[in-house]
Amino acid sequence: MKLYSYWRSTTSYRVRAALNLKGVPYDTIPVDLVAGDQRRDDYAALNPGKGVPTLVLNNGTVLTQSMAILDYIDATWPEPALLPKDALRRARVLAAAHTVALDIHPINNLRLIGQLRSRFGATAEQTTDWMCYWMAQGFAAVETMVDPQSTFAFDESPDLADLCIVAQVYNARRWGLDLEPFPNVLRIETNALAVPAIAAAHPDQQPDAKVTT
Amino acid sequence: MKLYSYWRSTTSYRVRAALNLKGVPYDTIPVDLVAGDQRRDDYAALNPGKGVPTLVLNNGTVLTQSMAILDYIDATWPEPALLPKDALRRARVLAAAHTVALDIHPINNLRLIGQLRSRFGATAEQTTDWMCYWMAQGFAAVETMVDPQSTFAFDESPDLADLCIVAQVYNARRWGLDLEPFPNVLRIETNALAVPAIAAAHPDQQPDAKVTT
Repeated sequence: MKLYSYWRSTTSYRVRAALNLKGVPYDTIPVDLVAGDQRRDDYAALNPGKGVPTLVLNNGTVLTQSMAILDYIDATWPEPALLPKDALRRARVLAAAHTVALDIHPINNLRLIGQLRSRFGATAEQTTDWMCYWMAQGFAAVETMVDPQSTFAFDESPDLADLCIVAQVYNARRWGLDLEPFPNVLRIETNALAVPAIAAAHPDQQPDAKVTT
Repeated sequence: MKLYSYWRSTTSYRVRAALNLKGVPYDTIPVDLVAGDQRRDDYAALNPGKGVPTLVLNNGTVLTQSMAILDYIDATWPEPALLPKDALRRARVLAAAHTVALDIHPINNLRLIGQLRSRFGATAEQTTDWMCYWMAQGFAAVETMVDPQSTFAFDESPDLADLCIVAQVYNARRWGLDLEPFPNVLRIETNALAVPAIAAAHPDQQPDAKVTT
């Protein structure tokens, strides 16, 4: 299997962590979002949304959209499960995961920030403020949704919400968000990064990681 | 069951359509997003993301995040199914649904537009251009993802992708997006609105609908 991925992409990070947790081998094909590789014709033919990640199965089948890919991974390699079987518990995990995946990430990603710059002349300071605002709003909601007594977001093993949260916290640290108001989020990050399969999915461990300031 | 909903909210529209398709009765509790009702303390206590919809089950259990609510509804009232059982077909439907639910809606909703206005002084024309830009990008991707031969997005009965698409097209028409480049999207809208359960979920059919220009 091939995973088209960008080291700093939080959606790629989620999928890498899931594949690692389930012990599914894959080759990473870097897509340099900053250089615009995602808009090249050959890549856009694979991924019409022109984003990462894209998962290409061994038979050539192409999957896009990280949360749909994660659903496929969880159905195909069920252990360890990323979602509970009970419909209500599953809805709670999904709601926390979606608070990151829908209410934070799409508003803060590279293509959106590019439009803020080109349409409104947003400065570096304004784009950082923008990203931190949405992360703070989303994490405040996540704080009230997760179980404060568990090792991870809802349980003693990591689930889909944990993968979304730990990846978003990487981004939050990158942009300097004060995480002190979010103790549950911080606990989830610490415990998730103590899992070798998740730590191996961290951006800095990827083949396309660059040394940056 | 109570569904906290706003008539024009496309995420509320998706959930109303799913409940109607499955014949599940519910009472609509309007939340006026324009008046800011979603930020009132009593509502924010129910929905920490301060958005709609919120589904409150008969036993008082509260569910938030439209895509998580839809997952719960589909698991609890399985017929007619909103997602295929096969993991790969399911991933394709989810990918198209998520192209609307993640790549269009979160970037175009009321709270985001409010931030464009307050942070960047966005004019009415600029916010309309913004919304139409993201809808055109997303619909262009959806066009290549759905099955052009089916009545609905992927099959002969409506699924999760259809519900996301028909609700988003309502929004596209509201803001004047030229839909001619998206024949599959238009076909899905026509066939979805011909289903009485979906037509009954349309914004104009809701108790809080207002006559507007």
